[in-house]
Amino acid sequence: MIAVLRRLLIGRPLETARMEHEKVGQFGGLAVFAADAMSSVAYGPEEVLLVLMLAGSAGLAYGVPVGIALAILIAIVATSYRQTVQEYPSGGGAYVVAHANLGVLPAHIAGGALLTDYVLTVAVSVASGVAAITSAWPGLHEHRVALAVCFIVLIMLVNLRGVRESAGIFSLPVYGFIFCCLATILAGFAKLMAGHLEPGLPSQLPVALQGVTAFLVLRAFSSGCASLTGIEAVANGVQAFKEPRGKTAAAVMVWLALILATTVIGVSVLAHWLGIAPAEKVTVLSQIGEKVFGRGTMYYLLQTTTALILIFAANTSFADFPRLSAFMARDGYMPRQMANLGDRLVFANGIIMLAGLAIALIVGFEGDVSRLIPLYAVGVFTAFTTSQAGMVIHWIRKGGPHWHYKVIVNGLGALCTGVVLIVIAVTKFAYGAWIVCLIIPVLVMIFRSIGKHYRYVASRLSLDNASAVQPHHNLTVLLVGGMHRGTLEALQYVKALSHDVRAVHVEAEGAQDPRIRRLWDAWEHDIPLTVIESPYRNLAGPLLEYCAKLKQQEGYDIVTIVIPEFVVDDVWQSLLHNHTALWLQVSLRTVTDVAVVNLRYRL
Amino acid sequence: MIAVLRRLLIGRPLETARMEHEKVGQFGGLAVFAADAMSSVAYGPEEVLLVLMLAGSAGLAYGVPVGIALAILIAIVATSYRQTVQEYPSGGGAYVVAHANLGVLPAHIAGGALLTDYVLTVAVSVASGVAAITSAWPGLHEHRVALAVCFIVLIMLVNLRGVRESAGIFSLPVYGFIFCCLATILAGFAKLMAGHLEPGLPSQLPVALQGVTAFLVLRAFSSGCASLTGIEAVANGVQAFKEPRGKTAAAVMVWLALILATTVIGVSVLAHWLGIAPAEKVTVLSQIGEKVFGRGTMYYLLQTTTALILIFAANTSFADFPRLSAFMARDGYMPRQMANLGDRLVFANGIIMLAGLAIALIVGFEGDVSRLIPLYAVGVFTAFTTSQAGMVIHWIRKGGPHWHYKVIVNGLGALCTGVVLIVIAVTKFAYGAWIVCLIIPVLVMIFRSIGKHYRYVASRLSLDNASAVQPHHNLTVLLVGGMHRGTLEALQYVKALSHDVRAVHVEAEGAQDPRIRRLWDAWEHDIPLTVIESPYRNLAGPLLEYCAKLKQQEGYDIVTIVIPEFVVDDVWQSLLHNHTALWLQVSLRTVTDVAVVNLRYRL
Repeated sequence: MIAVLRRLLIGRPLETARMEHEKVGQFGGLAVFAADAMSSVAYGPEEVLLVLMLAGSAGLAYGVPVGIALAILIAIVATSYRQTVQEYPSGGGAYVVAHANLGVLPAHIAGGALLTDYVLTVAVSVASGVAAITSAWPGLHEHRVALAVCFIVLIMLVNLRGVRESAGIFSLPVYGFIFCCLATILAGFAKLMAGHLEPGLPSQLPVALQGVTAFLVLRAFSSGCASLTGIEAVANGVQAFKEPRGKTAAAVMVWLALILATTVIGVSVLAHWLGIAPAEKVTVLSQIGEKVFGRGTMYYLLQTTTALILIFAANTSFADFPRLSAFMARDGYMPRQMANLGDRLVFANGIIMLAGLAIALIVGFEGDVSRLIPLYAVGVFTAFTTSQAGMVIHWIRKGGPHWHYKVIVNGLGALCTGVVLIVIAVTKFAYGAWIVCLIIPVLVMIFRSIGKHYRYVASRLSLDNASAVQPHHNLTVLLVGGMHRGTLEALQYVKALSHDVRAVHVEAEGAQDPRIRRLWDAWEHDIPLTVIESPYRNLAGPLLEYCAKLKQQEGYDIVTIVIPEFVVDDVWQSLLHNHTALWLQVSLRTVTDVAVVNLRYRL
Repeated sequence: MIAVLRRLLIGRPLETARMEHEKVGQFGGLAVFAADAMSSVAYGPEEVLLVLMLAGSAGLAYGVPVGIALAILIAIVATSYRQTVQEYPSGGGAYVVAHANLGVLPAHIAGGALLTDYVLTVAVSVASGVAAITSAWPGLHEHRVALAVCFIVLIMLVNLRGVRESAGIFSLPVYGFIFCCLATILAGFAKLMAGHLEPGLPSQLPVALQGVTAFLVLRAFSSGCASLTGIEAVANGVQAFKEPRGKTAAAVMVWLALILATTVIGVSVLAHWLGIAPAEKVTVLSQIGEKVFGRGTMYYLLQTTTALILIFAANTSFADFPRLSAFMARDGYMPRQMANLGDRLVFANGIIMLAGLAIALIVGFEGDVSRLIPLYAVGVFTAFTTSQAGMVIHWIRKGGPHWHYKVIVNGLGALCTGVVLIVIAVTKFAYGAWIVCLIIPVLVMIFRSIGKHYRYVASRLSLDNASAVQPHHNLTVLLVGGMHRGTLEALQYVKALSHDVRAVHVEAEGAQDPRIRRLWDAWEHDIPLTVIESPYRNLAGPLLEYCAKLKQQEGYDIVTIVIPEFVVDDVWQSLLHNHTALWLQVSLRTVTDVAVVNLRYRL
């Protein structure tokens, strides 16, 4: 039944040999990797304005400078990462770069930070996507948590089925969204120039709760930094690009940075000129769209592509999180199961774990983007900083032509992202970043102890100093429940299996049943039957005592307990039986020097 | 962890030899068995008045005649049952009597009816007990469902610990309640005579929704019949009485009938004279107590003993339901597990099942006694009728002195209870009795199919026509995951176990690992290693295919698959491993002709 449901939802298993990667060029690559970064335009400027609004319209005036600062940061990080992707054509994620150049601890920090941020990307993107939908259709507002959970489950199922990151699928929403954004910005500017739109202050002037402080502006800037998460995604996925991989990835990086920076500045400036302030139930992008186009086709197109690109942005994390977990699992820092390939050649456990964590976040924060944003970006800037710092070490060690120049580029990247990281951590700490500042060290500790455990297991399993194989001295014990046809089959089996067999009946009902010995003597002459009492009506205890006594007295190394069990036709029938064999197996699971044979016979 | 919790809640296991029964005399017996019957005084008269109230004060006037009719019915049933308990001193429940005299189908009907009613007894008693508490402390009214569930869980735990039906524990609430009831009735009459209390109509005169009809009065009478459930309890538990068991039980029956009839009439008359009508949040008994005593010590004592006796009444079902289930399980009509003695020598599965069903009822009916009552009493009167009819057959077959007289007594009992059964079923059908009329036949069908299954299993396991034991031809296959110390231990084991061994490695990762064959050849020279490919990365499929091929080609009867597995220290560590052995065992569970050996080794 479960198997049928699984086939229906996930599809039939795929052969390992069918594992393949579609290679993307510049156009396709931008489609696949821009979703994560571009989607942040849908909520980034809004979160900037939400913070600035605390200082009233005086605060909102800082929207444009913050947008320009973000664009500059995007340019610096993209330039720095261009070097990384060209140097690590098989994937230059922060974990890999840090592991190669800085050592285990920085790699763990980068890994923990990235995993945290991937979970947040899913939660924030889906919550924003739902916000775009509820801006257009406000009746859905109260169902936003349920809607978001449904989307995450849907994305999870799609990923468990194993969508390749197909450029074809991504092109429509990503280029559609880019087109809609640029169209909105251009149309907005054109209409402002032509005087069809009135520049002005927000219709409902926000009340200033505080003055404009440097801290407030920096906090607004920190909120906007969420836009940079997508750049790491390109570096993670270099191996998906067509040859020359590094060059293609670097070109995509430049295009992405250009479009992203343009859009961020464009939206910021337009929001300022149109006098738009964040509102509770309508997103800033939706307000801009409505002012520029009215509630027409273009407006609904903008909202739809916004929702779509946000869902696809979440999908990017569903590729990155399981891949990074599998990397770390292979290095022995995450549970080995994370590296298991599922039926459809995807890292199913990672996908399920990501969905579970993102759903927990959505439910815990009631699907509220503004409450999730302060947790966001700490992780990715930690990863940026370790990754760029790793590149600096890489160039110093490697040298090569122009290495001084390259050290300066990556060094500038590391410095800027490091400073921004501190700014983010400090300005958002009290608003939720403390949670991430707590989680990352905890994750690092977990990675370390997992690594320690696997190294311990490997050392214990090592063949070094192992002695040659000497046969054990084994005794086979047949557990007899009663004398019936199944017992005869079991006797046939144990006689074939082993020459040293005893039979045991555990008397758990209190009263001795003389029938069993009489029947045994009638049917079996070679193997002796021992009846042992079980005052507490359990089987495992007296059985193990009996085995231990035999091992001690007669010098056996190991005892093989054969437990016969009959198989009924269906689940309902199996409810009518005690499943003594199963329970016994479960209670013997942790016992060593005892091997348990599960012998089934048909009725 | 689970084991510790279990010890804490339920206590350490008891030896089978410690199974014993406390024998009770008349005084103790009345305490133990009166709880169920007496407790119905707390809700019976109320439910009668609730129905009569539909016809306004004209209806309420019928409260006294209905009370008298109930008292007469009690006398008839008790007289009839006196003969049963003397004739079946080892327990004369309806199931046993019907099984012995009427055959399997009537026994199944009686059994299904009784099991249904036991569940209802728990639900109704606990709901009424909670109503007694919330009458005195109305603030708890909104938490009544949670409170009732807590009580049921508590009673379940106490019963899983295994309280003997100790007369000592029962005496206080039962005799306390009887004392309080009689005191209330006597004080009420005395104060009425002395003129301290005004006889009168209800302060809020109920509006007549319909006229007084025979149907209405009969429906009221049916609701009152709930009071008779306890009589069956005495018959079920005859073996708990001191010798001469039958006589002692019969005497207790008389005392119980006398007190019960007196109280029912007393409460009915008092309610009528005091002009009491049922109210939503205060029980009738509570209203009477308040009028007679005021909100003083005696009032709170009455409420407390009422709540206590109701909880103890539920406890009676916790003895009867598991005992009857175990009876029926031993006869092969209920799942065998119901007859398993738990750690504390109680039928734990029956106790848990009863608690689960009662909680489902309480939650489903929102802890509302009036909605549960229509389902009640159909079962117990079905049991009465079959039991008394069985006794009629018994006397006719057995004969003996005065058998004609005995046939007449039991025949009258059967006739009266049969008529009442029809009255109950008809008058309450639309109000909920249809549920029980549906459940009983379904249960009978289930009992029949369970019986059929067990007979089928027994016939298949029978040794009749079985042939003598011939050894099988067995092949042992060692599953090799990789070459490590554990593999060497497994080799030692299989060499001791069997002479016909093959080793198999399933290549699930896609790429062939040449290391394993090299290491195998270095360490093992006798047993050949076969490497099989698994294109879909599962183990069970290719392994079974390999075994099937060998069986077919080389004529083996059975294959023993040895699966080595290492044991880690704790649960957290075990989360870090794939548990291939366990999964493989689970997926091989339904396969026959393959025995699976679970070989564990310490690191």
